Amino acid sequence: MPNEFKLITDYFDRPNRVFRKDVLRGIGDDCAVVRVPANKQLAVSIDTLVAGVHFPENTPASDIGHKALAVNLSDLAAAGAAPCWVTLALTLPEFNTSWLKAFSAHFFALAKKFNVQLIGGDTTHGPLSVTIQAHGLVPKNKIISRSGAKPGDLIYVTNTVGNAGLALMCLQNKMSIPTKDRALMLQHLNRPMPRVKEGLLLRRFVSAMIDVSDGLAADLSHILEQSGVGAVLQVEDVPLSAVLKKSLPKKKAREMALGSGDDYELCFTVPVGKRAVMEKVMRANKVKVSCVGEIVRGKGLRLVLRDGKKFLLGKKGYLHF
Amino acid sequence: MPNEFKLITDYFDRPNRVFRKDVLRGIGDDCAVVRVPANKQLAVSIDTLVAGVHFPENTPASDIGHKALAVNLSDLAAAGAAPCWVTLALTLPEFNTSWLKAFSAHFFALAKKFNVQLIGGDTTHGPLSVTIQAHGLVPKNKIISRSGAKPGDLIYVTNTVGNAGLALMCLQNKMSIPTKDRALMLQHLNRPMPRVKEGLLLRRFVSAMIDVSDGLAADLSHILEQSGVGAVLQVEDVPLSAVLKKSLPKKKAREMALGSGDDYELCFTVPVGKRAVMEKVMRANKVKVSCVGEIVRGKGLRLVLRDGKKFLLGKKGYLHF
Repeated sequence: MPNEFKLITDYFDRPNRVFRKDVLRGIGDDCAVVRVPANKQLAVSIDTLVAGVHFPENTPASDIGHKALAVNLSDLAAAGAAPCWVTLALTLPEFNTSWLKAFSAHFFALAKKFNVQLIGGDTTHGPLSVTIQAHGLVPKNKIISRSGAKPGDLIYVTNTVGNAGLALMCLQNKMSIPTKDRALMLQHLNRPMPRVKEGLLLRRFVSAMIDVSDGLAADLSHILEQSGVGAVLQVEDVPLSAVLKKSLPKKKAREMALGSGDDYELCFTVPVGKRAVMEKVMRANKVKVSCVGEIVRGKGLRLVLRDGKKFLLGKKGYLHF
Repeated sequence: MPNEFKLITDYFDRPNRVFRKDVLRGIGDDCAVVRVPANKQLAVSIDTLVAGVHFPENTPASDIGHKALAVNLSDLAAAGAAPCWVTLALTLPEFNTSWLKAFSAHFFALAKKFNVQLIGGDTTHGPLSVTIQAHGLVPKNKIISRSGAKPGDLIYVTNTVGNAGLALMCLQNKMSIPTKDRALMLQHLNRPMPRVKEGLLLRRFVSAMIDVSDGLAADLSHILEQSGVGAVLQVEDVPLSAVLKKSLPKKKAREMALGSGDDYELCFTVPVGKRAVMEKVMRANKVKVSCVGEIVRGKGLRLVLRDGKKFLLGKKGYLHF
């Protein structure tokens, strides 16, 4: 049977690699070593995906390889950090060549897209789980947090939300939609594209930012709690995909967009004075952003409809316990 | 049921914390942010411990909290890096207050000892496993690697090896030793002390260094392979603890010292010209080091006895698959 060291060399040390000049030592020693420029600060984020918890047991290795990296790059995007290096701790129930091939191919394809180098890792034997730590750089004191939202700021979200939630319902056989639509939604769930470019573009405009992993309502609530403010969210302004709109009744579609997670879009707040130039820059870069509400004094998130009525949402994001 | 965010706050954000000035943002946002001084390079190491694989299922939480951190700090020690920050990805089968309390208390006790701050993490639901990434700093181009050993260099190891292996045999009921001895050996297995101080002291003397996690023979072999050299190891010079010596017949004790892992001592090579001053510095700092052999031209590790006979070793370290 091949051993751990051979495994690392075969699947993670060679194919498809990105090589960055700021990596002084990559895979293969006790530690990796990198150079952080004097005018930059280091941002790090670690996330674990567990089989049967964060993705169904039968999820293809290619999707896991992509998504595990994507969710970590998404955290860096939300902080306005440029991704540079990742480490990968992979726990595998068995040595399976085709699994490793598919996992590493899609992992590296995404890494290449964002010029991210795998610098170290650990492979262990056990129930399938993937932990990745992503490392990014931000100019000194330019990091974006969840805690900077101020009353009067406008709330935005990139692209559309709710597609990953719809995909999960399809996978759980709770609903059935046309094959083409289903494939498109599964792409959102299993191959989310981290909004790295968008996070970097938005850095100079936003007062707070977060990525939508637990659901728009839950993630916006994190901004509110950590900023000590409240918000009014115009439910009808939340951007829905054409597939989501046609697949579910209006109310259900909105619940999905607000309450389901895994979209990995960015939710952010912008001072009114920066609104026009932010929207202009986003248009110039072909990034779709939608204003969905306003930060207010006080506490909590109020979901309202145009007629002034409250919108009631069942659950507020995922709770892991 | 408490949610993930509450759990993090209760057990990891408050008690026993170390606070370092170079941490610009710790736990609680999408990313942690730290400052790396311009004259330093960043060393990182990630390791996963899985229940039932790296430690028996019934291992006390206190031991897991200590050991998961210790093994990562040990990797930094082997690179001659000063530990600074860690991230923790914890996968738990259930929410168990007393488990978390014991785990975090011992995790933080060790962190405090080495002035290491927990800056971020992820808690997920699933089969018990602990992934930690440790971050350390080294002066520019002073990192120690496995690949620098040269023919003629002397091979050393800190303290004694084989105790953790003996403890594991006791746990597996493959042997029985007096209660006091057993407790001492279990301390080596479950609460290894990373040789951080030793690694920093040794940095200016060694040509290559590694920590003994897979067993002295296996880990020294990593140095040999990566340095493109061979070695002759004097089996009778390998330092054994008094307990190991009296618990096993001579041959078995030596096999244990060479073949069993989890000791987390440092194995390193030193050019002959630096030998005297290195030994002097180590004595002055009350660090026990033993010369166990010599690097030679060629390939492979030769285990010899004083009478010139070969010593045969069954297995060479752990293979995870």
